[in-house]
Amino acid sequence: MRLFAHDRALASAIGPVDVARWEQYDLDDTLPFQAMWYTVAPQSSPPPDCHPEVELSLVISGVASVEAGDTITEVAAGSSFLLDSGERHVIHNRSSEQPLVVFSAYWMPPAEAGR
Amino acid sequence: MRLFAHDRALASAIGPVDVARWEQYDLDDTLPFQAMWYTVAPQSSPPPDCHPEVELSLVISGVASVEAGDTITEVAAGSSFLLDSGERHVIHNRSSEQPLVVFSAYWMPPAEAGR
Repeated sequence: MRLFAHDRALASAIGPVDVARWEQYDLDDTLPFQAMWYTVAPQSSPPPDCHPEVELSLVISGVASVEAGDTITEVAAGSSFLLDSGERHVIHNRSSEQPLVVFSAYWMPPAEAGR
Repeated sequence: MRLFAHDRALASAIGPVDVARWEQYDLDDTLPFQAMWYTVAPQSSPPPDCHPEVELSLVISGVASVEAGDTITEVAAGSSFLLDSGERHVIHNRSSEQPLVVFSAYWMPPAEAGR
């Protein structure tokens, strides 16, 4: 059993977001995805993000206001949201007090060929 | 964007554990793993578990007392633990009041051949 303690993870501030990438654990290809925790400060909105990786996120604490397409969806702690490859998104934290903590797993989608 | 709301997920009771498997979302091979939420009632210990899948778990709320090998490791909300293929484990909830809620991703390890 291996423990990954969130409160001891090394994180870097990127604007209003603290990002703790799991590359720090030297897992190589143990997991079939890459992973990170990120924390969005209260009343903050990081810039829009868009990447080729599919991303599955799990809200650990706080509420994520997930803007994708023309809609904003509130995602409560314990729930999850899936963003497709190339899907533009903004993860807002609209709370005035509570940080938003999210775990994300992300991976390149299988090649389109052969699907 | 697709939402997976934990509080609306279909769950089945297996002894003191409520299990909500993500097969209910018909994701086919969208994710490179299978997934579930499970909730362990206060002061409960499900039977030991052991399976060929590697399992990465994230504690959503409560504290998991993860017994593996000869040790028990406390895993707080927000933190994660990784169980290897074939690693016997028991996930205790020692709290007298708080349910333990865990998200798990699990997958078959790559074939040993060629590694």
